[in-house]
Amino acid sequence: MVVSSKIKAGIIGATGYAGAELVRLLMSHPGAEVAAVSSVSFEGKPLSAVYPSLRGICDDVLQNEDAVIGKSDVVFASLPHGLSEKLAEKCAAAGKAFIDLGADFRLEAEEDYKEWYGLSYNKPQLHSQAVYCIPELHRQNLGESRLVANPGCYPTSIGLGLAPAVSKGLIRTEGIVIDSKSGVTGAGRGLTQNTHYPDCNEAFAPYKVACHRHTPEIEQTLSHMAGKRVTVTFVPHLLPVNRGIVSTIYADVAQGVDFSDIVAAYEAFYEKEKFVRVLPQGEIANLKNVKYSNYCDISLHHDARAGKLILVSTIDNMVKGAAGQAIQNMNLIMGIEESTGLDLIPPAF
Amino acid sequence: MVVSSKIKAGIIGATGYAGAELVRLLMSHPGAEVAAVSSVSFEGKPLSAVYPSLRGICDDVLQNEDAVIGKSDVVFASLPHGLSEKLAEKCAAAGKAFIDLGADFRLEAEEDYKEWYGLSYNKPQLHSQAVYCIPELHRQNLGESRLVANPGCYPTSIGLGLAPAVSKGLIRTEGIVIDSKSGVTGAGRGLTQNTHYPDCNEAFAPYKVACHRHTPEIEQTLSHMAGKRVTVTFVPHLLPVNRGIVSTIYADVAQGVDFSDIVAAYEAFYEKEKFVRVLPQGEIANLKNVKYSNYCDISLHHDARAGKLILVSTIDNMVKGAAGQAIQNMNLIMGIEESTGLDLIPPAF
Amino acid sequence: MVVSSKIKAGIIGATGYAGAELVRLLMSHPGAEVAAVSSVSFEGKPLSAVYPSLRGICDDVLQNEDAVIGKSDVVFASLPHGLSEKLAEKCAAAGKAFIDLGADFRLEAEEDYKEWYGLSYNKPQLHSQAVYCIPELHRQNLGESRLVANPGCYPTSIGLGLAPAVSKGLIRTEGIVIDSKSGVTGAGRGLTQNTHYPDCNEAFAPYKVACHRHTPEIEQTLSHMAGKRVTVTFVPHLLPVNRGIVSTIYADVAQGVDFSDIVAAYEAFYEKEKFVRVLPQGEIANLKNVKYSNYCDISLHHDARAGKLILVSTIDNMVKGAAGQAIQNMNLIMGIEESTGLDLIPPAF
Amino acid sequence: MVVSSKIKAGIIGATGYAGAELVRLLMSHPGAEVAAVSSVSFEGKPLSAVYPSLRGICDDVLQNEDAVIGKSDVVFASLPHGLSEKLAEKCAAAGKAFIDLGADFRLEAEEDYKEWYGLSYNKPQLHSQAVYCIPELHRQNLGESRLVANPGCYPTSIGLGLAPAVSKGLIRTEGIVIDSKSGVTGAGRGLTQNTHYPDCNEAFAPYKVACHRHTPEIEQTLSHMAGKRVTVTFVPHLLPVNRGIVSTIYADVAQGVDFSDIVAAYEAFYEKEKFVRVLPQGEIANLKNVKYSNYCDISLHHDARAGKLILVSTIDNMVKGAAGQAIQNMNLIMGIEESTGLDLIPPAF
Repeated sequence: MVVSSKIKAGIIGATGYAGAELVRLLMSHPGAEVAAVSSVSFEGKPLSAVYPSLRGICDDVLQNEDAVIGKSDVVFASLPHGLSEKLAEKCAAAGKAFIDLGADFRLEAEEDYKEWYGLSYNKPQLHSQAVYCIPELHRQNLGESRLVANPGCYPTSIGLGLAPAVSKGLIRTEGIVIDSKSGVTGAGRGLTQNTHYPDCNEAFAPYKVACHRHTPEIEQTLSHMAGKRVTVTFVPHLLPVNRGIVSTIYADVAQGVDFSDIVAAYEAFYEKEKFVRVLPQGEIANLKNVKYSNYCDISLHHDARAGKLILVSTIDNMVKGAAGQAIQNMNLIMGIEESTGLDLIPPAF
Repeated sequence: MVVSSKIKAGIIGATGYAGAELVRLLMSHPGAEVAAVSSVSFEGKPLSAVYPSLRGICDDVLQNEDAVIGKSDVVFASLPHGLSEKLAEKCAAAGKAFIDLGADFRLEAEEDYKEWYGLSYNKPQLHSQAVYCIPELHRQNLGESRLVANPGCYPTSIGLGLAPAVSKGLIRTEGIVIDSKSGVTGAGRGLTQNTHYPDCNEAFAPYKVACHRHTPEIEQTLSHMAGKRVTVTFVPHLLPVNRGIVSTIYADVAQGVDFSDIVAAYEAFYEKEKFVRVLPQGEIANLKNVKYSNYCDISLHHDARAGKLILVSTIDNMVKGAAGQAIQNMNLIMGIEESTGLDLIPPAF
Repeated sequence: MVVSSKIKAGIIGATGYAGAELVRLLMSHPGAEVAAVSSVSFEGKPLSAVYPSLRGICDDVLQNEDAVIGKSDVVFASLPHGLSEKLAEKCAAAGKAFIDLGADFRLEAEEDYKEWYGLSYNKPQLHSQAVYCIPELHRQNLGESRLVANPGCYPTSIGLGLAPAVSKGLIRTEGIVIDSKSGVTGAGRGLTQNTHYPDCNEAFAPYKVACHRHTPEIEQTLSHMAGKRVTVTFVPHLLPVNRGIVSTIYADVAQGVDFSDIVAAYEAFYEKEKFVRVLPQGEIANLKNVKYSNYCDISLHHDARAGKLILVSTIDNMVKGAAGQAIQNMNLIMGIEESTGLDLIPPAF
Repeated sequence: MVVSSKIKAGIIGATGYAGAELVRLLMSHPGAEVAAVSSVSFEGKPLSAVYPSLRGICDDVLQNEDAVIGKSDVVFASLPHGLSEKLAEKCAAAGKAFIDLGADFRLEAEEDYKEWYGLSYNKPQLHSQAVYCIPELHRQNLGESRLVANPGCYPTSIGLGLAPAVSKGLIRTEGIVIDSKSGVTGAGRGLTQNTHYPDCNEAFAPYKVACHRHTPEIEQTLSHMAGKRVTVTFVPHLLPVNRGIVSTIYADVAQGVDFSDIVAAYEAFYEKEKFVRVLPQGEIANLKNVKYSNYCDISLHHDARAGKLILVSTIDNMVKGAAGQAIQNMNLIMGIEESTGLDLIPPAF
């Protein structure tokens, strides 16, 4: 009897955009396979009935979450906040690794979770086991963890964009301004007036100005790097494209630091990182060059007149900002090469 | 013999986007008429051959600039920089009013023009006669002027957005960050790889980061308001929509100022202005609500955690940012009601 | 006491797209004014709360339908099918003209209405009073009618496109193929998965293939012209733009007819029609040249190899296909110049 | 010394869209590798300078065509028509297989080439060696051929769409109407006014009505299937999306044929074809379900009232319509599994 040695991956919430993207990427992953998928709304239907793009590729019938947990080595969940503790507990009980694409395990401080999400932690010990992991920044924290908090899309673009500057003290951490723009898949598959085509096409505006729930997550990452509490101004905008995030980040260059030092620091910091591309001076990061891929492109600019560093950091919100990074985390905790299954070449058009 | 009492308006550079928009708006203006149009590239062809949308509406044959000057009371020019001094001189000699939609007369300091545009002033006295005019901010400067420098699109959105705060001292003028996003008509009708549909659609990036030529124009306006030299960080982005600019502006609230003071100041400042709408607290300015109109919508937001004022200012770059504002200026200098011909209701979709 | 002599227009269903477009156009109409607006979903709120584009322009509070009828000379209704008979009866009782933008009065034959809409006529006498009116084709039918069935968007583009050819017997009426493409506003303001931005953007497909409810309306118009029963093949597609319909129509040229005869017939047929532009040979109708206007552009093409006439007919589905045409009908029945308030110049971009 | 056993693929015209897509797909192909790339316009620069999406993935320097031929086992060319004979000759002389993505070898009859392209055949013997190959329809014709004419994008969608119906005599071959819509990448990377973003966005129109150069290629394929000369009416439209073709095809059902026979015939015809998905009755093919993949989705519809079969056939014009199909052909002539490297899962969004 031959048994597949592939990692069995289960996806809870497979009909949401991040869930569907996980299926798409895992179907091409040489070391993993989709073991089971679930959906509350579409249970009993094949996934390809919801996503006809998957016809003949993944016609798996959507099951319930327990079935998924039972059949999987690793369980991914992509659900609204407030639902993941229960799943994490079930996975732990069943000895399954759990990677949460939702927000429930991202914040270390319960008071932040209460303030921004309005909920308390019911299982504090689970939270202490969870590891928040942008692999390029936090992979050393994973240890033997079986519970990973997969970062949010904006925090990924911003954390990667600011890491060298903040961790090396090259900018002032007061007064950082982050102006982010996200494609509409970031708002999910659920229907809203704002994402109704005629209301969203040929339109543009910020939303949740200075009150988006990713703010504490961004600050948590930066505060760890800085070794002190960092507060940022963060304003997301809804961009009329399907995919991609561009974060334009403004910070004061620290006293005595040359812009060339910053460039050198970025190049060194990411030299060995496959998925982060620091662009040569003179080029500007554009989301079209990373879409449908796991890359984060970063370009560095100097406003010498105002003494500011301007960073442009761009990712595909569905890949590096969600499903791709989750697979990167899966590879890490399952002990296979981190980039496996993520050799996705961005189509320029 | 009955003679039309309408203002005869001529448009030099009528086949560019701003020129074509001037034609569109002037054709509906109750007190003006299109007297003549010119184009270097399409001289001898009807304008409707270049813009079939105008078939049966404006089939005027494109002439040369001298013909236009001869037939007009007011001459609008929408040309690349460096060409307007000569035109201004011709208009002055012919006793015609001149409204320049280009950049040549916008900067008061010749050294700024040299630095940012690489050219000198050949006719300094013309520059001293020119009045730079965002009507809501500068109409009192027009006096008897017959030479108007029509402001750039970004500077209009930004000048209107910041005027109450800067002129009343409600924010610190150091460290202002302006993150602007413009629809693609802002790049003009000329072909470039960046504006080729498949390269521009499903794409997003900043351009001319901290080095856009509108920077000195923005700073000139703000410096006058502040009564001191103001330096800003300005980064424009190319937005995949046809029309509209959204400027998201970040500034530190001045010591001792309450956010409610700022709101009150904005409401008072623009109370009598027809074309500026200060949105009620809780709403967010969106370009879809101003497109195809002469409105500037401004929303005010407070990042209390970081002590920042966040302004969102949006206009249609082709109307309030170009042709509409030029007509507003024409109305002013020709002594008719400022808003004549500009009752354009933005279609939401 | 001065009384406005303007026509008082009321709009029932003012928060739908067609209703909002009626408001936009009527606000600029020199001979009419918006007397009252209603909405079931948003009663009690100002219209500008639903459409912030109208802030300061039309802040009228949404009322109920009876209030609208009471305050108006002419009532427009833009509602889902099945609701208009009751309104028509109320308007008749109150002596108010009624222009229905819905489907309820469009079909002469009750059996067609039963077959395609699944409902019967409750008030047959109302239907016999209603006049279906594409003004260029049917204005002579209006007589003293006070009940107008405003045509559907597809049937308008198709009726205008085929009228000269069918009424003059220049094509065979068997085997006509109509391939139409509509912008997403045609689907209305209501939320659906198909019109969710990420599902609709970068997507394209037909819908209701050969079973769209506009089919009997199209055939009714063509059958009257032909003097015999005409059956067509009609396939609509959802086009990822906000506005506009392009109908590409294929028909066999009738025996003995030259293509030049057809061209001449079209030019003659529409010679005096302000809103229909028959393009010169060699040009191709494009929705961008009619959007935001009341024009219908028609281009004529000959597939000599296959003996087919190919017509391209394009309108703005919200204007000539809905609100603009409804105002054209209002002007006609109220005895003012037909084109009043409809001098809308299409912006090319 | 270990020598790679991978097929060495060279790409001439690598900076055009089809060339760049070939690079993207070949970089992920397990049995092939990009040996060399050429470009006349960008010779000497790395490909990633033209397509920054490829930075760190394919930084190969663009060479001249001779260098490419020298280093490759298989040469792909994606060039304007008229340039491929010379290349084919060089490849033949050098013993290299040649797959032409251009039009020069697609038409069997020189008179068709003269009529539609305005050029003669200089090397008739090369044309007699060339095999035109939509693999699902023509793979048996390849034999030992080393010169493949890769089909055009429209002809691929149409040939696959009509093959079962025409080859089985289920429809009348007179009067077929093909209404196709293509994303803008189909127009290539070269700049034109029609593909300038503001002219192309929120616009829609046919082009080359009944005179597109793909017409004789379509008719050649259908004529072979039908066993007699077939003439079609073909009208392409420019669709404001980046990728994808939807062909809506109208034909009279043949006497005595039931629609259910047609459905059964399609299912049988494509039963074993991995890349053609005949959708279940009730579903409608949509380009979003095939984009970025090598699939062709076909849906079948019956207009029983008019006796017409309506087919909807959709492909990604850059993949199944160009680079993907070319690789399918490469796999066939190089003797590896036909679908190798083409397991591309379409992302729904």
